[in-house]
Parts: sequence; structure tokens; C-alpha cells
Amino acid sequence: MVKNAMTADYLRSAYGGESMAHMRYLIWGEAAEKDKKPNIGRLFKAIAYAEWAHARNHFQELKEQKGDFTVPAGAVFGHTDTVENLQGAIDGELHEVEQMYPVFMEVAKFQNEKGAERSFHWAVEAEKIHAKMFKDAQDAAKQGKDMELGPVYVCSVCGHTTADNLPDKCPVCGAKQEKYQHFV
Amino acid sequence: MVKNAMTADYLRSAYGGESMAHMRYLIWGEAAEKDKKPNIGRLFKAIAYAEWAHARNHFQELKEQKGDFTVPAGAVFGHTDTVENLQGAIDGELHEVEQMYPVFMEVAKFQNEKGAERSFHWAVEAEKIHAKMFKDAQDAAKQGKDMELGPVYVCSVCGHTTADNLPDKCPVCGAKQEKYQHFV
Ligand SMILES: [Fe+2]
Ligand SMILES: [Fe+2]
Ligand SMILES: [Fe+2]
Ligand SMILES: [Fe+2]
Ligand SMILES: [Fe+2]
Ligand SMILES: [Fe+2]
Repeated sequence: MVKNAMTADYLRSAYGGESMAHMRYLIWGEAAEKDKKPNIGRLFKAIAYAEWAHARNHFQELKEQKGDFTVPAGAVFGHTDTVENLQGAIDGELHEVEQMYPVFMEVAKFQNEKGAERSFHWAVEAEKIHAKMFKDAQDAAKQGKDMELGPVYVCSVCGHTTADNLPDKCPVCGAKQEKYQHFV
Repeated sequence: MVKNAMTADYLRSAYGGESMAHMRYLIWGEAAEKDKKPNIGRLFKAIAYAEWAHARNHFQELKEQKGDFTVPAGAVFGHTDTVENLQGAIDGELHEVEQMYPVFMEVAKFQNEKGAERSFHWAVEAEKIHAKMFKDAQDAAKQGKDMELGPVYVCSVCGHTTADNLPDKCPVCGAKQEKYQHFV
């Protein structure tokens, strides 16, 4: 449970960012399905689930920080075609990977907030994979095609996301295989 | 589609608030189920779906406002027992009903933003009902009981929420009966 005000602020901001990412991936996923790209739609929905896990973990660390707050959080807007929606997704993930989570982790480490540091670490490990998967999706969409995509597996504990092979245990958080949610 | 910067800011803020509300109701709903109050859990999940519809509608109005933004948005935190989680839910809904949406609607009207005004109006009509339903849930939870709750119906177009009787058509947006999502 977090004790320091600055780390608590960053957990709230990350919760806001993850909640908005979850929501826009659901919206963009439906749009990709309408655009006759069911695999890209399924990828958006699987990754929306991973963002849900991140938001829940941050919220959980804030368990005892009760009350109303105005939360400043980063979000991407725009809702046009699949290629552009995917560009928004890539931009958002890369911002989290290159800027947001490294800074939030550094502060959590500096303030000796182990729980927050773990929650940020679990998130950023998934975001790296999300950026790459969205890039693959966009390469296909740019050619007017759906992407090739086997089953997608998302760890319900930490949000780790992987395609094709179900891991024996989660390489990020160590959870057992049965903790993975399947998106087939 | 929104044209004015101030109304666009308020749509983004409302999108952030609805996205975070959606997320915390999913979390609190699971907690209520674990607390052996499945009806209260189901109420949280139905209302989470209504907040999803609100967020989607606001995002849709912002379709053409592409880019990254830092969004300031109100959210309630804390995650303890069912009675306290419901107090957080009541406080959040009442803030939207009494403060946030009336101001956002006034600004949208002033700036002649018909689409935003409609999106805010649809949301606030549902929030009034949400506040009342969460109050009923809390009355039961305070006595250590689950609430009495028939089926809950949520309009997938505007988020209108009602229990017991499925409306012939939505009293808020006029959508047909088949647009309602059932939470039984
Ligand atoms: Fe995330
Ligand atoms: Fe992500
Ligand atoms: Fe994991
Ligand atoms: Fe709402
Ligand atoms: Fe509500
Ligand atoms: Fe409706």
C-alpha cells in the first residue's frame, strides 16, 4: 500500500491512463471488426483486457487512499480508420514505454514504494509487447488486409500479453498458466 | 462533431471520468460478489456498462480531435468494504449530477455544440438513476444484506438504466427495446 503523496499521484495518473486506454481499445476494436478486420479487432480486445489488469493493479495499490481527486492523465483521441487508430495506439504505448512508466518507476524506487514499483513494472513489460503487436497489425492494415493472428493470451494478474504459445508460467509475474485469459 | 476548444476539453474530461468510473465499478462489483452480495455485484456491472456507453459517446463526439492530451478528470478512490465502496459510488454520481454535467451542458449550450450537449444530457439522465440505485444498494449493505434486485436493463445507445421492467423504447434517447442490454 502506497504511503508517499508523489507516488500516489503517479498511481492515480497511471490508473486514469490505463482506464482511458482500455476504453478506446474497446471502441477501436469494434471499429476494426466493422472494417472487416476481425483479427485486429480481437487484438484490440485482448489488449483492452491487459489495460484493465493494469488499471486494477494500480487501483489496488491505492486501496487506502480514499477520496475524490482530479486526476491528470495522458490519453490519445481520434477515431477514423483502422490504420490511423492503430497509429494512435502505437503512439500511446510508446509514450508509456519510453517516458511515463520509466519516470514513474524511478520515483517509486526513490520513495521506496515496492508495491507501486511492481505495478508500474508489470505494466511497462506488457506495453513493450503491445507497441510491437499494434505495429504488426498496422503493417497489415496499410496493405488493406487483416493481420495474421493466432490465439492471444493475457495474464490476468499482470497483463502480460503473448500470441501463439500459452506460456507454462507468466514470464513477468510468475503466475500459473491457468491465470491466462484466452482470446481466440 | 465538436468545434470549440472549451467544449472539447469538457468532452475529454467527461470521457476520462466515465472511463475511470467504468473501471472502478468493475472492481467494486467483483468485490461485492466476493462479499456474497451478487445482486450488488450485478448492479455495479450493469452500471459499469452504462458508463462505457457514456465514454463511447463522448469519444465519438471527439472523433476529429486527433492527438495526445493530458486530461484532467474527476475520480473516486478507495477500495475497502461494500458499504464504503457504495458511498464512493454515490459521491461520484452526485458530483456528476449536481456539478459536473450541469456545467458542461451549460457550456455546450453557450457554444452551440448540439452533439456535446446531447452526449452530456444522455449521461446525466442515467447518473440520476445510478445515484438512487446505489443508495438502495447501500441501505441493504448497511444491514449486512444483499439488495433485492430484478433484472437490470441498460440502453446501449445512451446508458439509460432501469430495473424490473424493460421499456418499450428508451425514455431518454428513444432507442428501440432491442437496444437494451440485460443484466439478469
Ligand atoms: Fe497498460
Ligand atoms: Fe498497453
Ligand atoms: Fe503475469
Ligand atoms: Fe456516466
Ligand atoms: Fe453513473
Ligand atoms: Fe437510450
